[in-house]
Amino acid sequence: MQIKDIYDKYLIEEIKKVEFLARVRTHRQGKVVSFLVLNDGTTLNDVQVVYKPEVKGYSEIQNARVSSVVKVWGELVLTPDKPQPFEIQANEVALLDEAAEDYPLQKKEHSPEFLREIAHLRVRTKTFQSIFRLRSSLAYAIHKFFQEQNYVYVNAPIITGNDAEGAGEAFLVTTRTDGNHEEDFFGKKASLSVSGQLHAEAYAQAFNKIYTFGPTFRAEESNTSRHAAEFWMIEPEIAFIDLAKNLEIIENMIKFVINYVFENNKAELEFCDANLEEGLINKLTNAKDSKFVTNTYEQAIEILQKAVEQGKEFENKNIKFGMDLGSEHERYICEEVYKSPVFIINYPKDIKAFYMKLNDDNITVAASDLLVPGIGELVGGSQREDDFGKLKKRCLEMNVNINELDWYNNLRNYGYYKSAGFGLGFERLVMYITGASNIRDVISFPRTPKNLLF
Amino acid sequence: MQIKDIYDKYLIEEIKKVEFLARVRTHRQGKVVSFLVLNDGTTLNDVQVVYKPEVKGYSEIQNARVSSVVKVWGELVLTPDKPQPFEIQANEVALLDEAAEDYPLQKKEHSPEFLREIAHLRVRTKTFQSIFRLRSSLAYAIHKFFQEQNYVYVNAPIITGNDAEGAGEAFLVTTRTDGNHEEDFFGKKASLSVSGQLHAEAYAQAFNKIYTFGPTFRAEESNTSRHAAEFWMIEPEIAFIDLAKNLEIIENMIKFVINYVFENNKAELEFCDANLEEGLINKLTNAKDSKFVTNTYEQAIEILQKAVEQGKEFENKNIKFGMDLGSEHERYICEEVYKSPVFIINYPKDIKAFYMKLNDDNITVAASDLLVPGIGELVGGSQREDDFGKLKKRCLEMNVNINELDWYNNLRNYGYYKSAGFGLGFERLVMYITGASNIRDVISFPRTPKNLLF
Repeated sequence: MQIKDIYDKYLIEEIKKVEFLARVRTHRQGKVVSFLVLNDGTTLNDVQVVYKPEVKGYSEIQNARVSSVVKVWGELVLTPDKPQPFEIQANEVALLDEAAEDYPLQKKEHSPEFLREIAHLRVRTKTFQSIFRLRSSLAYAIHKFFQEQNYVYVNAPIITGNDAEGAGEAFLVTTRTDGNHEEDFFGKKASLSVSGQLHAEAYAQAFNKIYTFGPTFRAEESNTSRHAAEFWMIEPEIAFIDLAKNLEIIENMIKFVINYVFENNKAELEFCDANLEEGLINKLTNAKDSKFVTNTYEQAIEILQKAVEQGKEFENKNIKFGMDLGSEHERYICEEVYKSPVFIINYPKDIKAFYMKLNDDNITVAASDLLVPGIGELVGGSQREDDFGKLKKRCLEMNVNINELDWYNNLRNYGYYKSAGFGLGFERLVMYITGASNIRDVISFPRTPKNLLF
Repeated sequence: MQIKDIYDKYLIEEIKKVEFLARVRTHRQGKVVSFLVLNDGTTLNDVQVVYKPEVKGYSEIQNARVSSVVKVWGELVLTPDKPQPFEIQANEVALLDEAAEDYPLQKKEHSPEFLREIAHLRVRTKTFQSIFRLRSSLAYAIHKFFQEQNYVYVNAPIITGNDAEGAGEAFLVTTRTDGNHEEDFFGKKASLSVSGQLHAEAYAQAFNKIYTFGPTFRAEESNTSRHAAEFWMIEPEIAFIDLAKNLEIIENMIKFVINYVFENNKAELEFCDANLEEGLINKLTNAKDSKFVTNTYEQAIEILQKAVEQGKEFENKNIKFGMDLGSEHERYICEEVYKSPVFIINYPKDIKAFYMKLNDDNITVAASDLLVPGIGELVGGSQREDDFGKLKKRCLEMNVNINELDWYNNLRNYGYYKSAGFGLGFERLVMYITGASNIRDVISFPRTPKNLLF
């Protein structure tokens, strides 16, 4: 029997006898009665066990420390007058494995920094149980959203010979320590993928609708709360659609996953709302029930210029068409102006990637970022350039190695009529949904500069 | 409208007018009528379009080459006398993008080797459409199997500082070409993970039931049809269970995913049965409907010894207790002896990993491999050593770096009562289900020694 089963069933049928294994969260001994608070990881809910000196196994359980594994046989008794809905009155208890005294998660508050150093144990706390169960549900919701609409899941390669998008921020993959790539495992320079999009496009031409969901890597020396060297991305790509349809898919996807966790992870969301971000559930309810705003980049610049005129203190107040929006600007727009997810579309071509479709103005590209409160950019997408000549010209202008990308550019020669897609940073989604404020706390074993524990 | 929608709907409701975009598979021109066979990637099924010289757009479509993208407006006409159930009589056609003449997939047979060199295009063929749609369905079925039973999906880290399981076969991850790891991105030696199991165990202690599903890497210089440098693994781990329960979970999982593709991918399976492995559907039906066989390693050795006595010509005929079973031995047992998936359990400790639970005989460990016809080893699993002292002793005996694995071994000190799990090589599962005989043909862009295209 698992504790989740007991919680799922006790309301719909009478349960008397229970028998389960669990870990000790707290243990309070008394002369007449003692109390064990137990959790087995199958649910956020603990179970309180009451035992008396006359129960079988009393002497061995008596000193059970926090984190020990115990087995309990007992009776479920409803407790309408207490905070918990029921408790277990033990008939028998057994200590299956005693935890050592130096178990670092004794009942007290710990700093996030300390907890990151024990990433193999922190996940036993309610905070990380909530975050990582939500992370799991979100991953499944994403698969469900796409699979139910006939998208094909593609595993884009992780090791890649294309450095096109890497821009010097790709990790090398090698079996040598001398940089001799000709003699290397692959006979050439290999790196870890920063994006599966180019490969995804080839698959979208075959299957119409596809998505990737896998790890991507960036050897970026930035120690912020939103960057990690290893993170997961979802990169859907759809043939025969334009930017407007792309926005629709992004919006539907975000709403679908919010609805999914509302239906399946109420307890975890409530815990996050109470402990990680006040108003979290409210924020997510608003997002799923309202139509996302769409602004052009040009409109966004006007909004920011007006804000500066009215005295808004941005760190970068030099707002002008052509600039890259900073996180402070993105967050101002979605958090203060609209209090809602906001699409920004039609960015200047010079600040976006070479493969984005040039708009008729010859200045902007059919790109779309989705900004959400608390995070800033959550999704980046675009319609792709479908004209071989224009694509090649953009490659040259932006110093992209054309030879390496021959196969990619050539897709345009073999029947290519519109394609659009986007990249969703999975950890940012988990942060948005849980209210966790540091990316290191939504990754099981986070990797950042000079930090490779476990 | 997508071609899949037309196929899904035409039997249950009357469809007259249709309008869709698709790619040209074949084009046969006649003086009176011409025929386009089109596919849009949403289904394996093609649509035949009939058009006459008087249709709108005739002159532009007239020379449409293979792989061009066209749009068709027309009427659906049932054709009970022809092989295809219906055809489209066009009223209007438009050529949206013309394919170049050198499109390499003209209508003829191509060798698998040639197709691997155009991995970005080969997926437009029916063979690869079948394989990769099945791969996608299998991935989803695996998530579904575990999520519906309350397992938590964990992304084990890809970049790791543990070399414990690597045994010299791990790729280095670096930003330098001089092998100076102290000055490297992580300030220490980093490699690509060969398994997420150790991290998975830490999470199973927190959540009870978890699974990973991610890429793993091996810098192995072997050019066989079953090895790749980059492949995906599923590694479930369950706390509080023993080996017997582990076998039950493996068997249920395999049967679940077979049932899932039987329900959702009939067309693809039939294509694979007809083109990749004769008797495929029969083989899978048997597997899902029968109880898997379980033999001990000792029994397997006896079977093989008897086979040799009776004249079986193995390459390695020196069969004795303590040997590692070769692929030929594994396949003999499941293909010739049992014609069924077979679990082999209780292997000698010396040929298995340090973390497997020592049996009471002190000679064997509680390990289990699942062998399946056509593949050999599909799953490897074990109950884990739960005794800190015994685990440490095994590390020392097997030259495993204890300091690196301090955190892992230490899990045993913080309340650890049984744990078991397994690793499923995803590509091997895809090969088993599709009948594809080379791992390079079930990976979108395969990576093998001296081979890194795209």
